[in-house]
Amino acid sequence: MTDTRSHHVLPHHDGSELYVSDSAPQLGDVVTVRLRVPHGYGPLAAVRTRSNPDHEPEWTTARLVGSADGWDWWEAPITVRNRRHGYRFVLQHDDGTVEWVNQSGVHRGETLDAEDFALVAHPAPPAWLSDSVMYQVFPDRFARSAQADEHPTPDWAIPAAWTDPVDPAMPGRSQQFYGGDLPGIIEHLDHLVELGVNLLYLTPIFPAGSNHRYDASSFDRIDPLLGGEEAYIRLIEEAHARGIRVIGDLTSNHSGDRHEWFQQALGNPGAETESYYYFTDDGNTEYVSWLGTPTLPKFDWSSAALRERFISGEDSIVAKWLKPPFNADGWRIDVANMTGRLGDVDLNAEVRGLLRETMLRIDPDTVLLGESTNDAISDLQGDGWHGAMTYPSFTRPVWGWLCGDEFEPWTTAEGEVRTEPWFFGQPIGGIPRYTAEDVAGAITRFTAGVPWRVRLGNMQPLDTHDTGRFATNAAPGTVPVALGLSMTLPGVPVVFAGDEFGMVGADGEASRTPMPWGSEAHPSVAPILELYRSLVRLRREHVVLGTGGMRWLHVDDETMVFVRESADESVLALATRGGADVTIPLGALAGAARAEALHGDATLAVASDGGVLLIADGPAFAAWSLPGVEVPGA
Amino acid sequence: MTDTRSHHVLPHHDGSELYVSDSAPQLGDVVTVRLRVPHGYGPLAAVRTRSNPDHEPEWTTARLVGSADGWDWWEAPITVRNRRHGYRFVLQHDDGTVEWVNQSGVHRGETLDAEDFALVAHPAPPAWLSDSVMYQVFPDRFARSAQADEHPTPDWAIPAAWTDPVDPAMPGRSQQFYGGDLPGIIEHLDHLVELGVNLLYLTPIFPAGSNHRYDASSFDRIDPLLGGEEAYIRLIEEAHARGIRVIGDLTSNHSGDRHEWFQQALGNPGAETESYYYFTDDGNTEYVSWLGTPTLPKFDWSSAALRERFISGEDSIVAKWLKPPFNADGWRIDVANMTGRLGDVDLNAEVRGLLRETMLRIDPDTVLLGESTNDAISDLQGDGWHGAMTYPSFTRPVWGWLCGDEFEPWTTAEGEVRTEPWFFGQPIGGIPRYTAEDVAGAITRFTAGVPWRVRLGNMQPLDTHDTGRFATNAAPGTVPVALGLSMTLPGVPVVFAGDEFGMVGADGEASRTPMPWGSEAHPSVAPILELYRSLVRLRREHVVLGTGGMRWLHVDDETMVFVRESADESVLALATRGGADVTIPLGALAGAARAEALHGDATLAVASDGGVLLIADGPAFAAWSLPGVEVPGA
Repeated sequence: MTDTRSHHVLPHHDGSELYVSDSAPQLGDVVTVRLRVPHGYGPLAAVRTRSNPDHEPEWTTARLVGSADGWDWWEAPITVRNRRHGYRFVLQHDDGTVEWVNQSGVHRGETLDAEDFALVAHPAPPAWLSDSVMYQVFPDRFARSAQADEHPTPDWAIPAAWTDPVDPAMPGRSQQFYGGDLPGIIEHLDHLVELGVNLLYLTPIFPAGSNHRYDASSFDRIDPLLGGEEAYIRLIEEAHARGIRVIGDLTSNHSGDRHEWFQQALGNPGAETESYYYFTDDGNTEYVSWLGTPTLPKFDWSSAALRERFISGEDSIVAKWLKPPFNADGWRIDVANMTGRLGDVDLNAEVRGLLRETMLRIDPDTVLLGESTNDAISDLQGDGWHGAMTYPSFTRPVWGWLCGDEFEPWTTAEGEVRTEPWFFGQPIGGIPRYTAEDVAGAITRFTAGVPWRVRLGNMQPLDTHDTGRFATNAAPGTVPVALGLSMTLPGVPVVFAGDEFGMVGADGEASRTPMPWGSEAHPSVAPILELYRSLVRLRREHVVLGTGGMRWLHVDDETMVFVRESADESVLALATRGGADVTIPLGALAGAARAEALHGDATLAVASDGGVLLIADGPAFAAWSLPGVEVPGA
Repeated sequence: MTDTRSHHVLPHHDGSELYVSDSAPQLGDVVTVRLRVPHGYGPLAAVRTRSNPDHEPEWTTARLVGSADGWDWWEAPITVRNRRHGYRFVLQHDDGTVEWVNQSGVHRGETLDAEDFALVAHPAPPAWLSDSVMYQVFPDRFARSAQADEHPTPDWAIPAAWTDPVDPAMPGRSQQFYGGDLPGIIEHLDHLVELGVNLLYLTPIFPAGSNHRYDASSFDRIDPLLGGEEAYIRLIEEAHARGIRVIGDLTSNHSGDRHEWFQQALGNPGAETESYYYFTDDGNTEYVSWLGTPTLPKFDWSSAALRERFISGEDSIVAKWLKPPFNADGWRIDVANMTGRLGDVDLNAEVRGLLRETMLRIDPDTVLLGESTNDAISDLQGDGWHGAMTYPSFTRPVWGWLCGDEFEPWTTAEGEVRTEPWFFGQPIGGIPRYTAEDVAGAITRFTAGVPWRVRLGNMQPLDTHDTGRFATNAAPGTVPVALGLSMTLPGVPVVFAGDEFGMVGADGEASRTPMPWGSEAHPSVAPILELYRSLVRLRREHVVLGTGGMRWLHVDDETMVFVRESADESVLALATRGGADVTIPLGALAGAARAEALHGDATLAVASDGGVLLIADGPAFAAWSLPGVEVPGA
């Protein structure tokens, strides 16, 4: 009963400022919500909202406040009664038909509570999150300062020279050591400035027994191999001086088996830190670990002592690095999805709530993002994570659409060479073939259950340290398409360091190739670097791309067209793989006659009937600036 | 990305015995799950399952165990790691395409966790629930025994003679008193036997201040007006002697303001029962109530004392009526959806879990059903309610499809006459117009998020004491269609007493008309009574309709065809409003040549190519018995 008339002009609402008077309400507040309905859609006998406080429907009646640019605007009051307060619109037509509008679209039948629009009455994320373009750095591979030579190679490491190829098989996979460090990052901060990014996310920098450092041996110190605390303080100072925020990476699901807490308790019944882990025998020699990997013992969050030491205590790990002298700007939480969950136990909501509560106390201007590589919806209701590092709502569908026919073989941890292309987290024999319509469907499917405000905090990488690099498998010419989408769809764009150099890597190990510093002007690098700078600039210069509403205007097999909208500006975006010859019908988009091209090679023309023609040879990504949306009575 | 090829033959799995080796597993058990795939669908490189224990994917590989009747059967092991253990199937085709199979169908893209198939490792409901046809009685209106004359009319009551019309406006709406009683029900138990129902659900029978008794003044006694405890004991004994189980109706969200607990605390700070309610002033004179109705003060489930007295204590309310000498067979919980929920507080899962735990201790052979009149999915994950009294997955869509163009006006509680037809809980200006395809869509939408085992416990009434009667607005000839669906779709059929007499009533008040005893042989009643007896018998005589799997075979605007399947028998069902001329394609349905007509006027023929032709003039409901499904290797 879903209305799939994607080429018609449909009523619209989302959580952005155009439609919601207060996106950071308190419980008990009355929020005004607006629905825009195409003029002539109807006639309508009534427009109502239907909330579901305490799981019991509550209805309010909307009034027509006025019309502008071919749209009628209705508004209604909603009293926020639950922390996640879901609501939907109901359109009652004069002819007796009824339509329901929720986050998955316009429907002729009753809709699911899970897909309601939702107001969130938990404290709001810092506004800066939506203005951010994130840059992800894997420290061992980013830059090696001269200072790094002073450190002895650790016992676990297999030293590698900067230009050595990455070894994808164990033990090299986790022990090959290039020696990138924090001073190296400081030396290249101006690269970040030139790129235009303003949020630096570092994968773990605690001491550990591997190149990825997800097996922390302490959360209390910065790895001396990286330059220690002093370098971290300096890095954050230098970044802040350049307008770049910095967040760390903390594993709340497990520590390394070398961790001081674990070592204290291992084989030592009665140890102070015994309760932090799931020991399964009397002698504390057996324990639960991440997916059975013994080097990663799992935390037991029923331990009050662990909660205090890790999160809630005055000198907790979580607090320490956000406070002076460090002043980090937040955390990305590793394996957030499994944290506190084990069989019959699910303490995840408690742990993420405690994290959030602590951070609000320490510094409310910090962000909290959770890794949840698959469907993250149930954990993304606004109580904990500001957003997720998640793949089904952006990264994987974009790969499915824009990857080509030629693939790099890759090598497993066991050293086996695989020829079918690797697809993160999905052992399905390669990369599926999606149409643009499939991508739009996946975006809708995996965001319809997430409150708008949280959706804006979701990370939108083309790839990460855990995946192959998109460019490896991208069909010719599609990198700008994918990157353009990452910068213009609602969410936080993420550049994984090296993508801006056109680096490739067929899986999550091969993608950790050291940065090719000095190649910036190379003819094979300069254009891609310029593409990245240009598209990051697009995002940074147009606030509407951070917080504006979003309407699909056209979707077919080859092309998607959408618009981000605010009262100040609209940005029209077109992404096509095979080429576009699209007509946006009259009434769907106002102000096209005043469109200014911002990016890309595509033609926009206004037809004599007022419809908008968009023409492009594929693959292409293009964007235009349009006037803001007029909201009558607002 | 949903495959809407509903007329093609698609892979299938559901939670029934054909596909799941153990539907009542313990945590840690390995369950075998089977997928049937039409022969020639593929070729397939691999079939896998994807679970998500602790929110992290886990994959198993299926093996092809054999073929029968045109189907290939694959099976795979799944280790049950969470109490609700979700899983889906992934089909990897040789040509590189990938399909995902979950409770909402076959999809080309990744699917939502919420729509996974799910094993449930909570204790299983009593098996008898799925063999039940429920009969709902509203005691004041069912039957008045001679004994009722002995009771003085209570102070709140407006006496009515049995043949008086129901007064829909306040105060008559809640105070008009016909004096039906429990001995009256006993006198008519043989009517239930003849009808074939075997589960009697009584709306509240505690003392109260209204005809509906949802404003209980005590949960500790049976209303003397109904015959008191003695009559209740006798009713249950007499019912049990006839193979009929009996469940009561308990309001866990609120009591009446006349309730002894509330009266003890009202205006009496420090009273023992003060903590049971949400008093909002120092003097205990103001309090939270159900939707602001002062006669229905809301319970505060943070009260340990309330939990003990109401649910968990040895002599609790919940326990008392399940134990000797009463021996009731379970509870239907009123306003289950709001129970324990108020603004920032949500104790619903705790309360429903405590209810279930207590009932398992007192008598594990009892059932627990929760009223949740809208989307009940989030509360139906198997931890508490065995099923729900819920309307969006059956009752409302069926009304939308089968109601006609002529409607009875109805009168609001305020005495206003309304001419637009009334539609339960949906102030949308009438009854929407659905196609059969819309109904199938709604059934899928509102059951895809519910584990199969819980879905089987959901109530499927055409109407209840809270709604108008379906027959009031039914298009001519559609009552058999609706009733046939109620008896054959997965779920518990419910007959609201009086429907079998063809009674009408335009809203939830008018539907509470006293039973027209003595009219059984009347020409306007006898055929409908025979229809009910016949369709109840169909359900009771074919176990597969209680627990068998379910596959859609055909859906269009006018017609739906599905089959319920087990190893012993299959039942093919056709429901049409406008008439059917349908071909079920070759391979979709085996054994049609051996079909035996069970009910209804429709023609089944096997075409020369092996397809199955179904022809009927509408409206019609028809059912056929077919051989059971052969599962290779099972």
